[in-house]
Amino acid sequence: VWYVSRSPMLLNITLSLTAASVGFQLIPAFRESFITAHLFGIDLNKKTGEKVAEAQGVVVAALFLMVMFLFIPFPFAASWTNRRESFPFPQLMEFLASLLSICCMIFLGFADDVLNLRWRHKLILPTLASIPLLMVYWLNIGRTSVMVPLPLQPLFGEWIDLGFLYYAYMGSLAVFCTNAINILAGINGVEVGQSMVIGASIIINNIIQLSGDHTHHHRFSLYLMVPFLIVSSPLLYYNWYPSKVFVGDTYCYFAGMTFSVVGILGHFSKTMLLFFIPQVLNFVYSLPQLFRLIPCPRHRMPKYNPDTGLLETSKAVFAIAELPTAGKVVFKVLTRLRLVEVVTLPCEESNKEGKNKKTTEPKVAMSNLTLINFILILVGPTHEARLTWYVLVLQVLCNVFGFWIRYGAAGWIYKEVS
Amino acid sequence: VWYVSRSPMLLNITLSLTAASVGFQLIPAFRESFITAHLFGIDLNKKTGEKVAEAQGVVVAALFLMVMFLFIPFPFAASWTNRRESFPFPQLMEFLASLLSICCMIFLGFADDVLNLRWRHKLILPTLASIPLLMVYWLNIGRTSVMVPLPLQPLFGEWIDLGFLYYAYMGSLAVFCTNAINILAGINGVEVGQSMVIGASIIINNIIQLSGDHTHHHRFSLYLMVPFLIVSSPLLYYNWYPSKVFVGDTYCYFAGMTFSVVGILGHFSKTMLLFFIPQVLNFVYSLPQLFRLIPCPRHRMPKYNPDTGLLETSKAVFAIAELPTAGKVVFKVLTRLRLVEVVTLPCEESNKEGKNKKTTEPKVAMSNLTLINFILILVGPTHEARLTWYVLVLQVLCNVFGFWIRYGAAGWIYKEVS
Ligand SMILES: [Mg+2]
Ligand SMILES: [Mg+2]
Repeated sequence: VWYVSRSPMLLNITLSLTAASVGFQLIPAFRESFITAHLFGIDLNKKTGEKVAEAQGVVVAALFLMVMFLFIPFPFAASWTNRRESFPFPQLMEFLASLLSICCMIFLGFADDVLNLRWRHKLILPTLASIPLLMVYWLNIGRTSVMVPLPLQPLFGEWIDLGFLYYAYMGSLAVFCTNAINILAGINGVEVGQSMVIGASIIINNIIQLSGDHTHHHRFSLYLMVPFLIVSSPLLYYNWYPSKVFVGDTYCYFAGMTFSVVGILGHFSKTMLLFFIPQVLNFVYSLPQLFRLIPCPRHRMPKYNPDTGLLETSKAVFAIAELPTAGKVVFKVLTRLRLVEVVTLPCEESNKEGKNKKTTEPKVAMSNLTLINFILILVGPTHEARLTWYVLVLQVLCNVFGFWIRYGAAGWIYKEVS
Repeated sequence: VWYVSRSPMLLNITLSLTAASVGFQLIPAFRESFITAHLFGIDLNKKTGEKVAEAQGVVVAALFLMVMFLFIPFPFAASWTNRRESFPFPQLMEFLASLLSICCMIFLGFADDVLNLRWRHKLILPTLASIPLLMVYWLNIGRTSVMVPLPLQPLFGEWIDLGFLYYAYMGSLAVFCTNAINILAGINGVEVGQSMVIGASIIINNIIQLSGDHTHHHRFSLYLMVPFLIVSSPLLYYNWYPSKVFVGDTYCYFAGMTFSVVGILGHFSKTMLLFFIPQVLNFVYSLPQLFRLIPCPRHRMPKYNPDTGLLETSKAVFAIAELPTAGKVVFKVLTRLRLVEVVTLPCEESNKEGKNKKTTEPKVAMSNLTLINFILILVGPTHEARLTWYVLVLQVLCNVFGFWIRYGAAGWIYKEVS
């Protein structure tokens, strides 16, 4: 049923390369209109204080949509003439539902960049936008059972049917992916860089699996991921240190939704999550601040030291006595495990920070709980471009580890791995 | 195949009403964030010079998408259990392709409001975004032949197959509808008002046809048009004279694409165009200025007279001798037919307008070629709220005329009308 010829893939690559070359020209061409529209940021890690156009992810996202619109008819080239009889409707539906969800997230991301939406608005639309995706999953795949790891099999049996829970898991995948990329951010090039490494890992996995039982799923994923990777490259170019443009929430949402779409409809969402190890680590490490157990400043990106030109850990300043009980415990554990850098501030400085109320409570400055700050704790003050490289190398190493879990270690906890 | 029960329509109405009531609260709640994001305009027809939030169509458009995402599963309720066997894939595909095109246009419209896109960008994306729509048309309907009017039948036969041309026509429908609404604009409430009248006419036509041969098409159209009409109402409320918010290109694009989607996939696009008579008149009347045969100022909306508080025709000032030849002919014809108001400016004023070069060329001020200015020529200076009413009454009358052509006059030029 599915058109097996290789030519759609070649066309896909050609269209993507064309779009990327258009992107190389469009991004600088659009800079001024973005700044005129007050869509700009000041790079806090630079001395210049120049205006940098924000939300430029919208340009490559629009190019991605155009590539896909032009491409969709071609995988079905052989079926166009025999219309109703044997047309692979389920496959066309996959494309439509995927692009619908992705387009919806691009729209939401751009609206967030422009309007600074609240959390509740940022959760409702992506959740609803994944309904069509889940419907198509139900119709085309519908499998909700997962294999139980060997040590737990005596308890649950070989397979466990998660039923509705599996749909809840998939529905929250989009929200997780988008926000996971969005919070591993703050230095030039890191959002696009990590997304492109994840994208490349997904592509490699798809190619490995292409000869397996689920050729169709992995070919579908390639049709989306290859354009994603290629059209992202001009953005990486302009977003690399020193950034000419910022990518905005738009790009993070676009990337996150594209990953979850191929993970869900390609039925390899668990493998895909193995490529999110740095994001998961960053998320877990951030939790105490996200849940406000420990005070969370508005920006947690590393701090630029204008004297050395290097980035240092940024700090949250607070009095330990004022933390909630859970916060005190977390703080103690983090300090014991040397997972944070803590400086006890001298008392006069404490008073200055104490906003007019005279307190003798000693205050501490703790490094903010982000993976990037943690890297800075390990390696010391670092130049921004080098720090981006560290994050990306870590992403590559984690993804290699992910491949090893998927294709090496999985044999020890599951009987058979397809 | 198609789920015939009436309950999906009730659910559709309920969801839409809920969304509309949310909209009534969200629009004023979002006003500040839009103004903070520099998305505002100054109402040129008011004395106050107050900032009015722009692009608020994006709020109702997002609500529309949410209603549709929640609604889609329900028309298929009866088919969910018998998955692959007899699921009505083509019908689900219609929803997905429609929402994809609409979502894409909302995104483009919002980007246009924020970034003031150029014409070429505004033409490419909607054209590509209609590819999925045309694919679904090909698969689900595929008819490209149109009935020839009786007087021409001796020449062409009873039916003529337009083939590829019919797809080109449908592809340009979206571009036409969106821009047609966008240029019949400039006074409070007129964009939403006309869209709601057109929407109501489409709904009435769908209800008339519901008992006919194409029940499915018209039910599909109702599923989209009813939410459109209902969620638009809070926007009309806040956009009505004196406007608290402006609707933006976002709303015009959203409305135009929704109309063309139901027209194309409901296979009643020619009937739908009958409800666009005022827009077509406005478009044709505007052509000399759109093609720059006659100079076109940036804003062509009526001019506010602060002394009387009434709107008067806005004028384009130029020297007749400087017009291109075609422009001179058009100007002569328009003047002869009394379709424009022309004032010959006294010579000293001509000199003042002539930007430092001393010219003795007599200049004229001609009313701008918009339907709204033409109404002002007929009725004289008018209050803005009353003028909006005139446009909407004209829209209603033209749509009644459209119904008469469709159900009355069509009998004279076609043998049978379904
Ligand atoms: Mg934001
Ligand atoms: Mg505009």
